[in-house]
Amino acid sequence: MKTEALLERLHVIDSEYRRLEHAAALLQWDQETYLPRDAVEERAEQLGLLEGIAHERIVSPEVGKLLSELGSTSENPRGDESLPALERDFLRILRRNYDRQIKLPPDFVRSSARAEGLSQAAWIAARSNDDFTAFVPHLAEMVSISRKKAEYWGAGGAVYDALLDIYEPGITAREIEGLFEPLKLRLKTLLNRIGSVPQIHAPFLSEAYDCGAQHTFSMYLLDYLGFDQNRGRLDTSAHPFTTTLGADDVRITTRFIENNVVSSIFSTIHEMGHAFYEMGFPAELRGTSLGEGVSMGIHESQSRLWENVIGRSASFWQGLYPEFRQRFSGRLKAVSMEDFVRGINRVEPSLIRIEADEVTYSLHIILRFELEQQLFSGALSPEDLPKTWNARMRDLLGTEPQTNADGVLQDVHWSMGAFGYFPSYALGNLYGLQFWRKLNADIPHAEAAIAQGEFAGIREWLRDTLYVWGSRLEPAELLFKVCGEKLSVDPFAEYLERKYSDIYGF
Amino acid sequence: MKTEALLERLHVIDSEYRRLEHAAALLQWDQETYLPRDAVEERAEQLGLLEGIAHERIVSPEVGKLLSELGSTSENPRGDESLPALERDFLRILRRNYDRQIKLPPDFVRSSARAEGLSQAAWIAARSNDDFTAFVPHLAEMVSISRKKAEYWGAGGAVYDALLDIYEPGITAREIEGLFEPLKLRLKTLLNRIGSVPQIHAPFLSEAYDCGAQHTFSMYLLDYLGFDQNRGRLDTSAHPFTTTLGADDVRITTRFIENNVVSSIFSTIHEMGHAFYEMGFPAELRGTSLGEGVSMGIHESQSRLWENVIGRSASFWQGLYPEFRQRFSGRLKAVSMEDFVRGINRVEPSLIRIEADEVTYSLHIILRFELEQQLFSGALSPEDLPKTWNARMRDLLGTEPQTNADGVLQDVHWSMGAFGYFPSYALGNLYGLQFWRKLNADIPHAEAAIAQGEFAGIREWLRDTLYVWGSRLEPAELLFKVCGEKLSVDPFAEYLERKYSDIYGF
Repeated sequence: MKTEALLERLHVIDSEYRRLEHAAALLQWDQETYLPRDAVEERAEQLGLLEGIAHERIVSPEVGKLLSELGSTSENPRGDESLPALERDFLRILRRNYDRQIKLPPDFVRSSARAEGLSQAAWIAARSNDDFTAFVPHLAEMVSISRKKAEYWGAGGAVYDALLDIYEPGITAREIEGLFEPLKLRLKTLLNRIGSVPQIHAPFLSEAYDCGAQHTFSMYLLDYLGFDQNRGRLDTSAHPFTTTLGADDVRITTRFIENNVVSSIFSTIHEMGHAFYEMGFPAELRGTSLGEGVSMGIHESQSRLWENVIGRSASFWQGLYPEFRQRFSGRLKAVSMEDFVRGINRVEPSLIRIEADEVTYSLHIILRFELEQQLFSGALSPEDLPKTWNARMRDLLGTEPQTNADGVLQDVHWSMGAFGYFPSYALGNLYGLQFWRKLNADIPHAEAAIAQGEFAGIREWLRDTLYVWGSRLEPAELLFKVCGEKLSVDPFAEYLERKYSDIYGF
Repeated sequence: MKTEALLERLHVIDSEYRRLEHAAALLQWDQETYLPRDAVEERAEQLGLLEGIAHERIVSPEVGKLLSELGSTSENPRGDESLPALERDFLRILRRNYDRQIKLPPDFVRSSARAEGLSQAAWIAARSNDDFTAFVPHLAEMVSISRKKAEYWGAGGAVYDALLDIYEPGITAREIEGLFEPLKLRLKTLLNRIGSVPQIHAPFLSEAYDCGAQHTFSMYLLDYLGFDQNRGRLDTSAHPFTTTLGADDVRITTRFIENNVVSSIFSTIHEMGHAFYEMGFPAELRGTSLGEGVSMGIHESQSRLWENVIGRSASFWQGLYPEFRQRFSGRLKAVSMEDFVRGINRVEPSLIRIEADEVTYSLHIILRFELEQQLFSGALSPEDLPKTWNARMRDLLGTEPQTNADGVLQDVHWSMGAFGYFPSYALGNLYGLQFWRKLNADIPHAEAAIAQGEFAGIREWLRDTLYVWGSRLEPAELLFKVCGEKLSVDPFAEYLERKYSDIYGF
């Protein structure tokens, strides 16, 4: 076959693979939103089958052969130098996925999928019974499976790095440590200063707000921020998420809590940030494996940028608060915009990661990163996790959970064997502020635009500067391409220090 | 391989086929309910891919080999006599589907799918422009494709019978004619009598009723009739339908029209009737190709039984009207239950099939059946359809459309090449009343139960008597098994004659 024909065939396989993945994503979306209760088991079987078929196709011997014939090897994933750059990037992604999958024996894949299912079920029970001991054997099994996986991939001693690479390609634990150590210090210092001045009280935030009106307001937010409802939708689920069912079908979910009106607002904005990314890939990457986010960290940079940097800013509420206050005038009549903005930016060390404020959030992540490293270096065994967890909480956040359900059992990730995932959340904060600085340099009036409810300029800058690359680059390459710098703590730390010294007045 | 192993393998293939079909059904359901506007094309590609994969699996050479090895041939589809009856029925269904598919050359399947797509698009345009001429070449192509299909199946001269067999296995045009001729006479006679007495006026039916309240009432109906919401759901779509996404996931849709409050009620009940059937197959047929309705006609017997025989009866509203009236007291304060029941049973010859009442509905079907036969006998050519349509409308219903959009172009079926489908609607009326008679013989107090809002007995009788067979039997076999008789016009005609002489008082 000629090169063109080889590439064309590979693109056909890839696009069919993507279609199957999108179909599977619909099955999952439906499971979280509309699936009747008794259909859960059948749905799992349908999903398993569909994902199996998709997997078979993208790691078929034919794909291996096509990649080789195009010069793509594990050592030189981008293939023949004579190929167009776009195709070489395409080969790199396909080779990476191929290598990752093909090195895992089918028996291992099957048995780990089964073990993950059991482990997740055990975690749910353990959390609800606050019974960590019952979860220990599953956790140990998840660690051992991840270790084995890294072994198959030929990670040698660098097991944890191999796991990190799944979520944040190219990064190492050492690099993250080099970022998290200074970040930890600056966050703790900031937290101490905040703790030393009068605290913010915002009782109006925990009053009851009609969930129907919250829903209507979230729909209003979609339009306000420029979410294209012809290419996506908002639904309700127990845990907010974003999912891509096609280049023109990106769906987000939120949830409405009567006594926490801002929960739905910020989770809607957060997921919208993810969705803007997924909706923003250029036409040439449409329907291909390059039309995806670069990494979890870069993805999280987008959701957190919109949620926190934009969504929790005074400028943002300058434009939005009048509308919001009018809709909830019964509750907010006496609440000034300034009080509202102070309320939604209240800092308070707490036990639960997903409820944490901007300042403490990354400390929750750093804790998990430290423990993951110890689990994989062998310095910490699963049964000792609660003790270490609680001690580190005390040290980092000055508070300690009374139950494991509020401590080490709070997150689903480890029960699924998703070790190495947590750091992306904090890395997202770092990436986000580096991008934000660059954006503000390129668009000097960004803040004024936000205050006027004008987001097109920001959306377009992100699309034309960031999203345009799809997953063609590694995260570090993308960051350098956009900002001309390496990943760094300063922009994020300085942003927090400035913002919170303003808010708390020190 | 031993027989057990052959059967087991065949069941694995079949259950994976069913899962893929259910996944495809979700994609379709979503397309009709929640899909963002711009994602329509992508969805078509996803669906095409998924259905292609499902199709490949169920007509693979392996399936052909397994069927043969189990003794199933086109002549003896049920296979070796030594096999258990259930397995023999299973083989029969698989052989039928296999033969139907395998005899069509892949090129023919592809090109007809494409032609059907174009034809449907052309029909949409033709209907909206009231331009039958533009649709003629497509219609001719659809007739020719259907003819060719029957030829591949070896139908010989009996082309139309081969098409009928897709929807109503085992029936012939001659048999249908033997039923429709007397039915036509009795319906026309009844219609004339109704026309000779004072008509019913029910202006309250076309007043405005809040769509939100209509929705809430449809949800109430689900519970009232015993629809298990843990195994299904109700959503909204432009055209109401029922779809099966799994043994425990049967979904129905309805639509809410402000100035037609009963439209949503009767379409909800109609689709619920389909859903009861799909939800009622026994455990042993779960997830297999035997866990399906017998035929379109039998399916329609269930939806029409619930919608018309039960849902439009005075007994039904005796139980439900107080609740309904209370919910819409602004509109219905002055409307007695008797007036309401008369209103929803008003008979009036009209142009549009899907808006027809119980008496005229079957006449719309008979007209289509007559024209389809003429199209396939060659007595009528596509371009002459409108003239014949209008003349037959005048003769059968005493009215004539002013436009083809309200006439020959009103239904989608022919544009998809679904010739032979229409008769099932009227056959459903006949089956339905035969089943209903038997049910009332077995449950003498059925009507009283309905008046008390008690439907469990009726649901259970249908489940244990009808649904229990899945698609193990042919329609005629099932009818005989249940009622001990052949398909006949009398029960349906007598039911109408009694009901409408009561309502119109003659």
